[in-house]
Amino acid sequence: MVDFLTLDTDTLRHMQKQLTLKYEEFKQQNLKLNMSRGKPCPEQLDLSAGLLEGLNRNYLAADGTDCRNYGGLEGLPEARRLFAELLEVQPDEIIVHGNSSLALMHDLIARALLFGVDGQNAPWGQQPIKFLCPSPGYDRHFAICEFFNIEMITIPLREDGPDMDLVEKLVAEDETIKGIWCVPKHSNPTGITYSDQVVTRLATMKTKASDFRIFWDNAYAWHDLTSEPVPLKNILTACKEANHPDRVYIFSSTSKITYAGAGLAMVASSVQNINRLKKQMAIQTIGPNKLNQLAHVRFFQNAHNVRLHMKKHADIIRPKFNLVLNLLQTELGGKKIATWSRPQGGYFISFNTMPGCAKKVVQMAADAGVELTKAGATFPYGIDPKDQNIRIAPTYPSLVELKKAMELFIICVQLVSIEKILCSREQKPAELITPLGNKAQIV
Amino acid sequence: MVDFLTLDTDTLRHMQKQLTLKYEEFKQQNLKLNMSRGKPCPEQLDLSAGLLEGLNRNYLAADGTDCRNYGGLEGLPEARRLFAELLEVQPDEIIVHGNSSLALMHDLIARALLFGVDGQNAPWGQQPIKFLCPSPGYDRHFAICEFFNIEMITIPLREDGPDMDLVEKLVAEDETIKGIWCVPKHSNPTGITYSDQVVTRLATMKTKASDFRIFWDNAYAWHDLTSEPVPLKNILTACKEANHPDRVYIFSSTSKITYAGAGLAMVASSVQNINRLKKQMAIQTIGPNKLNQLAHVRFFQNAHNVRLHMKKHADIIRPKFNLVLNLLQTELGGKKIATWSRPQGGYFISFNTMPGCAKKVVQMAADAGVELTKAGATFPYGIDPKDQNIRIAPTYPSLVELKKAMELFIICVQLVSIEKILCSREQKPAELITPLGNKAQIV
Repeated sequence: MVDFLTLDTDTLRHMQKQLTLKYEEFKQQNLKLNMSRGKPCPEQLDLSAGLLEGLNRNYLAADGTDCRNYGGLEGLPEARRLFAELLEVQPDEIIVHGNSSLALMHDLIARALLFGVDGQNAPWGQQPIKFLCPSPGYDRHFAICEFFNIEMITIPLREDGPDMDLVEKLVAEDETIKGIWCVPKHSNPTGITYSDQVVTRLATMKTKASDFRIFWDNAYAWHDLTSEPVPLKNILTACKEANHPDRVYIFSSTSKITYAGAGLAMVASSVQNINRLKKQMAIQTIGPNKLNQLAHVRFFQNAHNVRLHMKKHADIIRPKFNLVLNLLQTELGGKKIATWSRPQGGYFISFNTMPGCAKKVVQMAADAGVELTKAGATFPYGIDPKDQNIRIAPTYPSLVELKKAMELFIICVQLVSIEKILCSREQKPAELITPLGNKAQIV
Repeated sequence: MVDFLTLDTDTLRHMQKQLTLKYEEFKQQNLKLNMSRGKPCPEQLDLSAGLLEGLNRNYLAADGTDCRNYGGLEGLPEARRLFAELLEVQPDEIIVHGNSSLALMHDLIARALLFGVDGQNAPWGQQPIKFLCPSPGYDRHFAICEFFNIEMITIPLREDGPDMDLVEKLVAEDETIKGIWCVPKHSNPTGITYSDQVVTRLATMKTKASDFRIFWDNAYAWHDLTSEPVPLKNILTACKEANHPDRVYIFSSTSKITYAGAGLAMVASSVQNINRLKKQMAIQTIGPNKLNQLAHVRFFQNAHNVRLHMKKHADIIRPKFNLVLNLLQTELGGKKIATWSRPQGGYFISFNTMPGCAKKVVQMAADAGVELTKAGATFPYGIDPKDQNIRIAPTYPSLVELKKAMELFIICVQLVSIEKILCSREQKPAELITPLGNKAQIV
């Protein structure tokens, strides 16, 4: 493969012509593929076949609770035990709730705005507040902040987690910084996992705001693609050891274990935080859907079986990740117009174009029938300062569809890149932009 | 039966002795009965046997949606159609959500405090606001107001709904009154249903606050005990006709149709309100548990079958209501120490003691092992100004348990009443209190 930047203009123009022909061919196929969200594919959902039917008309929990009836705000005891073990917390440090961990996060922040988080400091909503947003990150986290008028400060996300020098500096001096969003394992979208050192620094750092909180969205806690699980240091333990036991809220769900729309979500934290939350949630609901919790516990029985189940997921989606990575390597490797992540788990491949090209690539793909995550979505306010990050979600399409979509994507990347190179040569020879000016954070 | 007030002191003292012996006998039985909440009994829950298992591993909705996966914020189209028909609204005027209508109410008010309800007026939380609370009413509504520091104004609840003269007067003059709680059919706890005239007046009344909202908790919309359903005028239509299309939010659920803890909840309103709510909910969740919605739709097929299903519920709980009413009539009728409701549907019998006796009765029953709803719970702040209302929830216990519990209850009522009469004779002959000084609103 040749570095595009070393090619002369005529060669690039010739390539542009050929690629345009290919692009037009794709357009004529009237594709309609959606790769915008990290959705499990039907084969993954089939792994949980019989989950609900397995209740077998026996609706009693181990303690005799009729799961069809009201009650049980904090979740079924056996569900709390199972997910406490998986999240490495105690059963009284977890609430197992409905189908949406996003709702748990959203509601926690809504309550914090109205009441504060600790019964001591003022409600967060009484003054303008800020959240730290390691980026690229999860667009729905950023949407919650935007919705609630919480100012977002972008923090570069590195290979081992957020830029902790910057995080520590900011939280030490600004009392209005109340939180940080973290997807600590197989991060969305870059796939990185926080190092032990980063976890320790988050737990121990001095914050000007005594009611600072870490929103630890461990959405991909058991979602390894490799045979050996990637380790993640226990943040709740680290916070306790640092005498900040109430600093972290841990979130997770079975959305990508059982059913994306009909799984279980959970929040874990210190007993003090959990008890406070239970009192507040008692005003909101009489209790979660315990039948679904019972069905989940009956289906899995224990934590070991959940981990075995996750290996089956990996077996289904690993070939999809490999297909994408192989195509990218074969078609774009060495051309110096893009970088991408090689994740060991999670749901995404993070792709960086040359600066200023992401939006155009996503638009071109959409015009030919392949919908990708909106360019910019992985940054606060939907604005990628370099316009270069694209989140590739390979899990949902079939291998055949995925291959087609990626072939189109690769054509689009090359076309937009060539256009950019040619344009910079023609119009602003003096300002020729280094394609990946700053070393990409992810490779 | 004799009017207790006409009995001489010696006779009352003799009765007191005999009743005390009976009470002590009950105490020795070590009863443990909970009649505090309106819970369906196991036989009612059995009516929905096979609901979940009925999915039969076919998870596709009519439009091909895989209900196991993400999406579908507003609910499955067929679920929206079914409950729109039952609530007499249009499918685009309803959101079918998770298992808790309480959560829909709570969240709506939380959002109103942070953002307002219409995008025009200020957030409700920017100033102290008030809600009208027809009482006796539902304690969980009042708990939401108390939690959010919304001042509650008690409005007398009559046979045909809230005291509308008072409601109209208050909302016309006070801009900080932003809402009213209504359980318009088979009200909790008095069992009354709003008259057409009351519905019309609520829809048409002039409110000083242009962002005034009716929280219409139609929890017992299909929960008739009689063969002929009790009619309720359509409030959404009435609001539209009165040029206040956005005034009402209607809530309901299948908590007392299928599973109390694992049913479906819904909110209906104008298309404008629903669209606004959808945009806000899109920040909170990717979507509700659609599998449970599909299971419900498959189980019922159509609105007619829901209504047939409700007749089966009535057949199970009617004997329980009759048992309570017959015991009350036989044991307390004519004694002039209590009044009670004779509901045509819903989940409760509302019982009024002589003023100042409710707390003592509930405490005595608890001491002998029968837990009733906390006295005062049916009023804002848990304070019944006359300390006389007790909510009887007859649906959950078996007939045998219910009979025992009511026998005890009736002993307690008589003992506390006699004590009160004797006390007033001895200590304050001049201030002898008329037992039901104000004509009880419910008979």
